[in-house]
Amino acid sequence: MPFDPASLKYDANGLLPCIAQDHRTGEVLMLAWMNADAVAKTLESGRVTYWSRSRQAFWIKGESSGHVQNLVELRIDCDRDCLLALVEQQGPACHTNRRSCFYTALREGGETEILTPMA
Amino acid sequence: MPFDPASLKYDANGLLPCIAQDHRTGEVLMLAWMNADAVAKTLESGRVTYWSRSRQAFWIKGESSGHVQNLVELRIDCDRDCLLALVEQQGPACHTNRRSCFYTALREGGETEILTPMA
Repeated sequence: MPFDPASLKYDANGLLPCIAQDHRTGEVLMLAWMNADAVAKTLESGRVTYWSRSRQAFWIKGESSGHVQNLVELRIDCDRDCLLALVEQQGPACHTNRRSCFYTALREGGETEILTPMA
Repeated sequence: MPFDPASLKYDANGLLPCIAQDHRTGEVLMLAWMNADAVAKTLESGRVTYWSRSRQAFWIKGESSGHVQNLVELRIDCDRDCLLALVEQQGPACHTNRRSCFYTALREGGETEILTPMA
């Protein structure tokens, strides 16, 4: 049966979270949001495409920065309300120029930066 | 400076998504939601504690199933509106008895189950 993006469960804003993970290293790179059209565009183009909540527009990851995410595989969770995108990430995934957005760790009760911006 | 859960950015329902990742293998296990109190409880107890949107109650992962998530490290993303929990997962993370909730992959235009329930 062909996959239909409308078969996923979206929130009141028509969105669901999508986790991007480096398909080689397993590093979790970022989390962003997709609507059904963004899911379809991602699958059609092979370029991970989110829905920008702040801009209310499609966000083809890397379109302006060059830091594209090529889709390796899209996975669906048991509740069909969350996606996991295995990606080939060009350069940094984070707008701070770090490989991952999750560069702040809680250690010994405080915040510690564990990644530095990429050269 | 000590970390304050109130310094994170929650949605209109007072929640943010938390990704649970196996700290050894890097496998993404699940995504669930936390409010500020769940974040505090997770850090205090070392047991990952979510907020169940369906039950509107704290959800100490594994409390009824025994499939606990022991916290190894909690990380915050650049926008402070998403968490990544590195965990030691006992048994399956998914209520379907699979190791991960992301057991459905989109391959060749259709859905394929890539994980079977654990024995």
